[in-house]
Amino acid sequence: MFEDKKAAWLEKAEALKPVLRKETVRPVSGMPDHALTENESVVLDFGGHYVGYLTLNLTGEGSHPDAPAWLSVKFCENSRELHETLDGYQGWISKGWVQQDQFHVDVLPAVLSMPRRYAFRYVKIDVLALSSKYRLVIRDAFAETVTSAADENVLPLEGDGQEAVIDRVALRTLRSCMQDVFEDGPKRDRRLWLGDLRLQALTNSVTYRNFDLVKRCLYLFACAADREGRIPACLFTEPRVEGDDTYMLDYSLFFIPTLLQDAEAGGDRETVRDLLPLALHQLCLADRQFDPDTGLIRDSDRMGWCFVDWNLGLNRQFCAQAIWIYCARAALRMQDDPGLARLVAERTAAARSAWYDAERHLFVSGSERQVSRASQVWAVLAGIAEGEEATACLDAVSACPEVVGMVTPYMMHHYVEALCRIGRKAQARQVIRDYWGGMVRHGADTFWELYNPQNPDESPYGSPVVNSYCHAWSCTPAWFLRSGILNENA
Amino acid sequence: MFEDKKAAWLEKAEALKPVLRKETVRPVSGMPDHALTENESVVLDFGGHYVGYLTLNLTGEGSHPDAPAWLSVKFCENSRELHETLDGYQGWISKGWVQQDQFHVDVLPAVLSMPRRYAFRYVKIDVLALSSKYRLVIRDAFAETVTSAADENVLPLEGDGQEAVIDRVALRTLRSCMQDVFEDGPKRDRRLWLGDLRLQALTNSVTYRNFDLVKRCLYLFACAADREGRIPACLFTEPRVEGDDTYMLDYSLFFIPTLLQDAEAGGDRETVRDLLPLALHQLCLADRQFDPDTGLIRDSDRMGWCFVDWNLGLNRQFCAQAIWIYCARAALRMQDDPGLARLVAERTAAARSAWYDAERHLFVSGSERQVSRASQVWAVLAGIAEGEEATACLDAVSACPEVVGMVTPYMMHHYVEALCRIGRKAQARQVIRDYWGGMVRHGADTFWELYNPQNPDESPYGSPVVNSYCHAWSCTPAWFLRSGILNENA
Repeated sequence: MFEDKKAAWLEKAEALKPVLRKETVRPVSGMPDHALTENESVVLDFGGHYVGYLTLNLTGEGSHPDAPAWLSVKFCENSRELHETLDGYQGWISKGWVQQDQFHVDVLPAVLSMPRRYAFRYVKIDVLALSSKYRLVIRDAFAETVTSAADENVLPLEGDGQEAVIDRVALRTLRSCMQDVFEDGPKRDRRLWLGDLRLQALTNSVTYRNFDLVKRCLYLFACAADREGRIPACLFTEPRVEGDDTYMLDYSLFFIPTLLQDAEAGGDRETVRDLLPLALHQLCLADRQFDPDTGLIRDSDRMGWCFVDWNLGLNRQFCAQAIWIYCARAALRMQDDPGLARLVAERTAAARSAWYDAERHLFVSGSERQVSRASQVWAVLAGIAEGEEATACLDAVSACPEVVGMVTPYMMHHYVEALCRIGRKAQARQVIRDYWGGMVRHGADTFWELYNPQNPDESPYGSPVVNSYCHAWSCTPAWFLRSGILNENA
Repeated sequence: MFEDKKAAWLEKAEALKPVLRKETVRPVSGMPDHALTENESVVLDFGGHYVGYLTLNLTGEGSHPDAPAWLSVKFCENSRELHETLDGYQGWISKGWVQQDQFHVDVLPAVLSMPRRYAFRYVKIDVLALSSKYRLVIRDAFAETVTSAADENVLPLEGDGQEAVIDRVALRTLRSCMQDVFEDGPKRDRRLWLGDLRLQALTNSVTYRNFDLVKRCLYLFACAADREGRIPACLFTEPRVEGDDTYMLDYSLFFIPTLLQDAEAGGDRETVRDLLPLALHQLCLADRQFDPDTGLIRDSDRMGWCFVDWNLGLNRQFCAQAIWIYCARAALRMQDDPGLARLVAERTAAARSAWYDAERHLFVSGSERQVSRASQVWAVLAGIAEGEEATACLDAVSACPEVVGMVTPYMMHHYVEALCRIGRKAQARQVIRDYWGGMVRHGADTFWELYNPQNPDESPYGSPVVNSYCHAWSCTPAWFLRSGILNENA
């Protein structure tokens, strides 16, 4: 399906490919004031998070260098990475993501321009080998940084110090992820994921306002749909545009609210006109997972069938149903459709009937009737719970002693949004100050992929060494703080 | 001194810079017949020793690669290197010489053209990381090899099988070392040493006959002389021609016989006309080390003052005197000089008087009157012992129970040459078959920097991991076997 449209979509996507903005930056500290010997290390600190290409201008001191200089160069987004190693790494995400390369410099002086793009604040250089006859001088170190974010479009946030700092870190997070596409993280995975794109587009709409980039990404996802018209969870742009073979129910559906947001924020009708049929098709594809008799979505044991949060213990059945309803409602805002509206009403009623525990004011999920914060959040966002009932749900889950919690800033975003929806603006603001502010207190220059205040070492990958410390889905404090949604009257 | 001549010399040297011959070669075995997974290794065997640049044509199999492919690529001249690691390496030569690099391939398919030049027969590729979603396919592997040796100038050696094999390995050794200059070893140190050049030029004169390259190297050494006119033991050509600050008495003096050889073999008088004054100057510079009263060269504790052999226990005083006499005799063949001839006679007499133990028929060296094979060899080559006395010396040292032996093919060359000088052609031939043939029996494709038949693991550097297995000074069997010197009537 839609195959006949893809060439035109791809052409539009490529025409919108941004010219990256380049800037040369140098370390603010760490440049050695002496010539280095074998086994010495230096840590260059660029003073902030950047994405780009490093060049070292090297020479020898002493005798003519009579052996190659062998260097290990490690790029760290976060100072904790400086001390981590891959020794014994058994995680399931590739250790190829760790930003560490080795170089042999055969002739000195040399300009060592590293060909790979890195995401970093710190650069650790270990001198693995020289010879006894010379020492290594780093005459200059600079990075050519790249982004498609336009700083001049964004004024600093007014207001109190802490929120201004959180906003600045959020902006930096988004900025570093804005490249040829909205990347999820410039260290890892360096590609376009729909779940991240939706939150990036939201934040972009009140900050860098690069609507062309959002439009490009929507068209890219449209091109990457499979033969059935199913939109993948993420896509690759190199060596050519190709969807990943990872499909997640919620991510496919989020194409719809992302398209809606773009239409509302960017004001461009062309994209909606082109892509709405494909967007609506995601709802139809998801229909197969519903039991026509009960109106309930079927649960699944398949890892990653529906993302919601990085929490292996979370039952996702309720959230999946809620997200379908949330996205269908977004579709109805773009196009009237009485049949769809009826289906939304039926499935909302079915969800309440099956999973609302009215006595406890909690939505449960799965055959074991699991209580999670995610379920209450999505009940509110999807409008399955409204008004006082929505407030009661969120209060009840907070009071519940055993509840499956949230582990990602991505899920935290939805929680804060749900708090805003029920009018708890001060509480929403406090969550931002506590949660994202917690990362700032841990020294974050950009917001992390993962942050558990109770266990900052947590990683779903088996080791924090592959964690991403600049991750798109964490950038939304800038949206909360700038969109007006936190205002009491909004 | 000679400073005013250097610009013209450099111009001549650069005009003689060879255009390297390039050839594309592919592995004869080891190409994997399946897609590789993380932690797999393959060993490509190129079937012979080459110097060049490797390209891997890579692609993924399975899902679209979703993480960089991280490879370690190790180049080995000798199969033993495949199993050696740098763990715990404490040697004094830089471990930067070990030919091992790491590469991250961010996008697949990819043509990974490695920028550094390597010397190898085997290439070991370790897949350090992929992801669980794809496997790595090596679609093609090839090397663009480089040499300035012209194979068409050399016919295979006639004669029995073993000598033909030794000759072939010797030729390959010289060929791989023939690049922009005569390198000592294409793995390590990859530069022009005078001691190696002399033996390379000898072998070149009866094989590849690239006299321009010899001439270029002579002019380069002339340019690299220091302000006193002293010729360094080795020189660098990158980033510009510069002498090393290593000076060794014998290596500086060997400029003279190398110039003589070139004149005799290549027949070019221009080089001698240009460079003879500088050559003779090396004899004068060495004069300072002689005691004018005794006519004996002073001994030295300085490591490397005179090379002779890689044998830390060797006393070099006698050899140094003998090498001065040997080189002065070479000078006299280029230019008549009664004063120099008289000095040669005096110093020969002084050496005999101080160090010849007529009863034992042995030359001794140093205050402890050390007996070494090297001293007898140089006594013969320098003409300090002649006729039956020379034969008696070499016989006596072979019968001597405690004698400082020889450790390098370089010293072995001089031993074989001394055997030829006394007419022991069959014995010389047998040493070649035993010693260089021993390396062949250990699987050598090229002759090694070091070979001790009693201890093949020996290394003067603290570990064999930095040993060079294709080393210029080992290439002389081809000279012995082709020059006619081994013929009984020669």
